[in-house]
Amino acid sequence: MFNVKIIGSGKSVGSIVKKSTDLEKEMSIPSGWIERATGIYSRYYIDSEKGENALSLGVDAARQAIKDSGLALEDIDCIIGANGSPMQAIPCAASLFQRELGLENSGIPCFDVDSTCYSFPIALFVASNLINSGIYKNVLIISSDTPSPTLEKTDKEVRALFGDGAAAFVVTRSEGESKVHRFLLKTYSIGADYTCVKGGGTLKHPNNPNTKLEDNLFHMEGTRVFKAALRYVPAFLREFFSENSLRKDEFQYIVPHQTSKKGIDVFKRFGFDLERVGNHIRTHGNCIAASIPMLLHDLITSQKIQRGDNVLLIGTSAGLSIGALSLTY
Amino acid sequence: MFNVKIIGSGKSVGSIVKKSTDLEKEMSIPSGWIERATGIYSRYYIDSEKGENALSLGVDAARQAIKDSGLALEDIDCIIGANGSPMQAIPCAASLFQRELGLENSGIPCFDVDSTCYSFPIALFVASNLINSGIYKNVLIISSDTPSPTLEKTDKEVRALFGDGAAAFVVTRSEGESKVHRFLLKTYSIGADYTCVKGGGTLKHPNNPNTKLEDNLFHMEGTRVFKAALRYVPAFLREFFSENSLRKDEFQYIVPHQTSKKGIDVFKRFGFDLERVGNHIRTHGNCIAASIPMLLHDLITSQKIQRGDNVLLIGTSAGLSIGALSLTY
Repeated sequence: MFNVKIIGSGKSVGSIVKKSTDLEKEMSIPSGWIERATGIYSRYYIDSEKGENALSLGVDAARQAIKDSGLALEDIDCIIGANGSPMQAIPCAASLFQRELGLENSGIPCFDVDSTCYSFPIALFVASNLINSGIYKNVLIISSDTPSPTLEKTDKEVRALFGDGAAAFVVTRSEGESKVHRFLLKTYSIGADYTCVKGGGTLKHPNNPNTKLEDNLFHMEGTRVFKAALRYVPAFLREFFSENSLRKDEFQYIVPHQTSKKGIDVFKRFGFDLERVGNHIRTHGNCIAASIPMLLHDLITSQKIQRGDNVLLIGTSAGLSIGALSLTY
Repeated sequence: MFNVKIIGSGKSVGSIVKKSTDLEKEMSIPSGWIERATGIYSRYYIDSEKGENALSLGVDAARQAIKDSGLALEDIDCIIGANGSPMQAIPCAASLFQRELGLENSGIPCFDVDSTCYSFPIALFVASNLINSGIYKNVLIISSDTPSPTLEKTDKEVRALFGDGAAAFVVTRSEGESKVHRFLLKTYSIGADYTCVKGGGTLKHPNNPNTKLEDNLFHMEGTRVFKAALRYVPAFLREFFSENSLRKDEFQYIVPHQTSKKGIDVFKRFGFDLERVGNHIRTHGNCIAASIPMLLHDLITSQKIQRGDNVLLIGTSAGLSIGALSLTY
């Protein structure tokens, strides 16, 4: 158990609202198909002509989170980048965020933590350990993902699902009831190719003539991910809830990764009351690592999650990983 | 202070020995220039025709580290990827290492930690926190970088400096004198462009027609990095050695990032005895995040570092960051 408290959050999305009906026209698929299949009515896309990108969205969310925390920029003593996909190969995202925040001479330590869609809870858990050890006091965590430029124009599945967004949180030492309780992560790399972008790094380097254009695009086999979740999640939950844990019915809110309507509704099968399972997939789609913190932010700002509430951040991610983190807000 | 002990290590390099004199011929520069300017006689390159890449090198090092630790593969309960540059955009490197190790059904949690060249000590510090909190027991950390395919053929500076290599370490809870003591990281993103690869991610996506080939290549302004080190490192060291720290003369070995001969010799100016500053730059060059753990492995296997010795892992990294971690081996 870690004495850690969320004291500020922010969220930013692309300025283009892309409706599923528009995507259906572009891809010549029947009207209504996307919303029926995925539960997504619309998602946000960055407007690159306005200079929007993962960096600008992340910084916008971070400024809001710091303002919301009541701290000054200079009070932040660590920045953790928790994107699900890289903004550039070198250096880490946290450094780029630091510079855009005007902290380029501050010396505030910057590093990234990555487990694709589940990067935010892992970063929060790493931050909790560092705060608990007395290493840092006020940690800023930023998750920003803009998959829209990496979606193959004719790939119905990925274009239906993904949107662009960012969220940021400030966490600090807790003197009261706020805690981070339990964390569990399991990785089954038998599913490493179910969700992947094989390009972008040294294995299939962008300039290598053998690298194909599609290697640089988002590849997802949603059915295989869903089947893997059905296979692994029940045992995962048994382990998570086996020892020193809050019970399922003690959580006021479950904040699942926003994979698809089906991927959220399945939590009923896993023994959760859907009334308490957070969901903004209809208007946001799946924003990779930004989904969990964006939804957490929305539930906090709409006062559905209140101080003292128990919250579970849970989801699958490319890797293939399954993660859960419980906290008292 | 963290009760953490290194119990195994491994190292792997590309199978091609690339001499500086060969590079000089290829780039039509005077014989002897590279070794005089950088102190590098030769470095290792991966042989892609033999299937060597960052993944194969990292897995080779990891197998050695696990064997050296005396543990079984299944005893590892967390894998942290600590490369300095991505192997592919999604998923994280640790998942890909897990699969190649034959652990694809194990569930062993996988995530990456990134601060470019200083990724290994940060991963070691994160692991130390997690071990100290009782979350994990035996953590495998892998750093593997193969910059050779990302070096512009006519860019003398980067071709002179960089080589391909990997190292892996297994760390566990310590019952004796072995400890991780103090950790300090400072990031000055005013230098974020001094060392960078701007491509590979969403900001300058490989398939975007506006992304230039050179955006995907390693860019380094060594003189600016060196000057930044001279500006920031003295105050950094004063802070590091200010409180509850071992003194400079209590370290049996300093393990600096292998930037260049000049970047290693400068530690004399920072008050260290060069006899105790580790150095294999002549035969390895700069292997990004793999340099510090590769050198640490070499010093341990050659028994220059022995049980109970105090060791300082220190270096600059793209970002621009400066880091130091002290441990008793």
